[in-house]
Amino acid sequence: MEYVNWVREQLGPLLRSVGFRFTPEQELTKRLSGLRRAMDKIGMEAFLVVQKMDCYYLSGTTQDSILFVPFDGKPLLMVRREIERARIESSLEDVVEIKSLRELPSLIRDLRGRLPENMGMELDVLPVNDYLKYRKLFPETAITDASMLIRDVRKIKSTYEIDLIKAAGHIGTKVYHEAVKILKQGMTEIEFGGLLEAAAKKYGHEGLLRVRSLNYEAYTWHVLSGLSGGIVSQSDSPMGGLGLSPAFPVGGSLRPMKAHEPILVDFGTCYHGYQADQTRMFSMGRMVKKFIDAYGACREIHDAVLDSIRPGADCEALFRMTVRLAEKLGYRESYLGPPGLQTRFIAHGIGLELNELPFLARGQSYPLEEGMTFAVEPKIVFPGEGSVGIENTVAVTRDGCEILTPLEQDIFEV
Amino acid sequence: MEYVNWVREQLGPLLRSVGFRFTPEQELTKRLSGLRRAMDKIGMEAFLVVQKMDCYYLSGTTQDSILFVPFDGKPLLMVRREIERARIESSLEDVVEIKSLRELPSLIRDLRGRLPENMGMELDVLPVNDYLKYRKLFPETAITDASMLIRDVRKIKSTYEIDLIKAAGHIGTKVYHEAVKILKQGMTEIEFGGLLEAAAKKYGHEGLLRVRSLNYEAYTWHVLSGLSGGIVSQSDSPMGGLGLSPAFPVGGSLRPMKAHEPILVDFGTCYHGYQADQTRMFSMGRMVKKFIDAYGACREIHDAVLDSIRPGADCEALFRMTVRLAEKLGYRESYLGPPGLQTRFIAHGIGLELNELPFLARGQSYPLEEGMTFAVEPKIVFPGEGSVGIENTVAVTRDGCEILTPLEQDIFEV
Repeated sequence: MEYVNWVREQLGPLLRSVGFRFTPEQELTKRLSGLRRAMDKIGMEAFLVVQKMDCYYLSGTTQDSILFVPFDGKPLLMVRREIERARIESSLEDVVEIKSLRELPSLIRDLRGRLPENMGMELDVLPVNDYLKYRKLFPETAITDASMLIRDVRKIKSTYEIDLIKAAGHIGTKVYHEAVKILKQGMTEIEFGGLLEAAAKKYGHEGLLRVRSLNYEAYTWHVLSGLSGGIVSQSDSPMGGLGLSPAFPVGGSLRPMKAHEPILVDFGTCYHGYQADQTRMFSMGRMVKKFIDAYGACREIHDAVLDSIRPGADCEALFRMTVRLAEKLGYRESYLGPPGLQTRFIAHGIGLELNELPFLARGQSYPLEEGMTFAVEPKIVFPGEGSVGIENTVAVTRDGCEILTPLEQDIFEV
Repeated sequence: MEYVNWVREQLGPLLRSVGFRFTPEQELTKRLSGLRRAMDKIGMEAFLVVQKMDCYYLSGTTQDSILFVPFDGKPLLMVRREIERARIESSLEDVVEIKSLRELPSLIRDLRGRLPENMGMELDVLPVNDYLKYRKLFPETAITDASMLIRDVRKIKSTYEIDLIKAAGHIGTKVYHEAVKILKQGMTEIEFGGLLEAAAKKYGHEGLLRVRSLNYEAYTWHVLSGLSGGIVSQSDSPMGGLGLSPAFPVGGSLRPMKAHEPILVDFGTCYHGYQADQTRMFSMGRMVKKFIDAYGACREIHDAVLDSIRPGADCEALFRMTVRLAEKLGYRESYLGPPGLQTRFIAHGIGLELNELPFLARGQSYPLEEGMTFAVEPKIVFPGEGSVGIENTVAVTRDGCEILTPLEQDIFEV
């Protein structure tokens, strides 16, 4: 049978039968309305969306596409590969095939009668050479930066999105419960991390944790045992661990994990693109008291943050509150990293990417809003010895917050 | 103990004890000489390297850094995080800490007496907003595109690099041998893929397969069983599979694998940043004859390519030869994808990234050179039924090629 006919008849039901959920039309409509209101406010006539997660957010598909959104009209999804599948995955009305970027101007002219005078693009991630191609295609159009606009729209999650983060968190919960059966004496950090990830995949975890950045990478095997937990590396994190090589100097290593050491497992899971992030402590036999006490302090800081979360609370003030509390608890020198290398955030926004807004961090003074989702992760680091920490992903509710990664918070001792 | 002192004393030996290999000084010297010769030829006065893999290639570290390379002098590695570890991992002489990009001009002026009149950057990946920051920092310097320059230098691998690709291939061989013990009736594609990846991690595989691109992503769980193998998706690949959701519509899915179906496993492995890519076929019980025959054709095409590889052979001619051979063997309509969706390459360059030069592809008419490494992957696709294929990573030698992923090529039947 011809491929196109086969796909049109069979692929939709087949995808549903293996667990695919397609973003409902009303959900896309709401997101697009929010975006267009924001565009209208700053006089942005159109937005040409090229980044994969922004496209997914606004169209429901990650087929290789470019999305044109005018501030006052219907969006046009232009698909390079694969058009039939894009039509199944996206509930947008206008989905057309393009063979080359050169077709863009005429397609947009057909849609609106003329090209926009100004058009936003994601200049925070769009490479220069690509930008120059678009400049040539739209010589009369002013191309402006739409990156803060889309990040701002995306920072407030709908119930639909929060449910997907919860589903990711649910995968994480199952993995942590299996972890106590997986962890064995003599296992290396990376072996443990790999098996946790395999468990997560079985439940539908999508292995890539996306980050909006040129060089910043995320991964799921952040398993740091004993002194590995006391080592800082290139990432903006209290501790990076040893890693596997100078090419990947973060996360689990070939170091065998030992009894009584703190084993920190910082594990992200992903479901339908939405990520949940959580950290718990493990040990084989009882952990040394110094670490048990420090973990208690992390929990106290974590709980203090969660108690203070509500719409209107200031992100920087929340961060500073945790620094004061850590000092009061006696961890001034070890909170969020060794002296001089301490990180300056206690929580990072999370959704389709791991570095979304908001950041509860130094220099980030703005209010929390209902529907924001972020991962709160106090950590304490003892150089040359190890580290402890706890992390949960939460959503801001009308008068507080909801934990999206529900799981026991005690140390998992095996 | 203070963190810095602890790291200086202990971290180097510790990293070596868990398998780290540091790029030797002579290796870096050779790479930098090659780069500077290429710069000199086109009158590029300096190259400011910001992309992680280019930095690693030229400095030996992936600590968060920017590397300044003048065409006629010593490079300067400027490290944001973490300086002590960068000093251990890199054998470059001049490694300094920076807190802010604003320090760049004065550091470079200190080094050379003045700022360069022109300076290359990686404009194929550098985001526009970052570029604008550099423009402000170097208002008198012409910033030019150095992306083809560095990709050209990197396309010829040294013996040291080829050995690392072989080590990655060796991990792959071990994984395929374990795979026959892992594969079980009723297992889903993604469960199988996850367990293969866990096996690879145990041997030191670095889970991220890097790609030089804004939106193009790679992953290791490309396990396609039965009709999943007949489905095209967003990737530039003969078949994408079902995947896990519209956010990740490629690779292994929650579909249970069935007896007698073709199970295609396209598995990339990574060691010290260097990737090897290989594909083999599996089945539970004997595979249906149609697929066995088509797999035989893939092997014939694969062997014909390998027999023709030598310095001077034209990349496009090799691709076209395979198309003719596929037609002769009766697979005109199914070679490299369903009609209308066929991909236009038979091999992609591989090294630190999955889309390096050369491409044995339509429109890529240039000669092979000794030291090039690429993955040759003929595949045959039957829409609605399944697909078969074989893939090996090879290096061009003085008079032929060497397979870097040695492994039995018969179907793995369990």
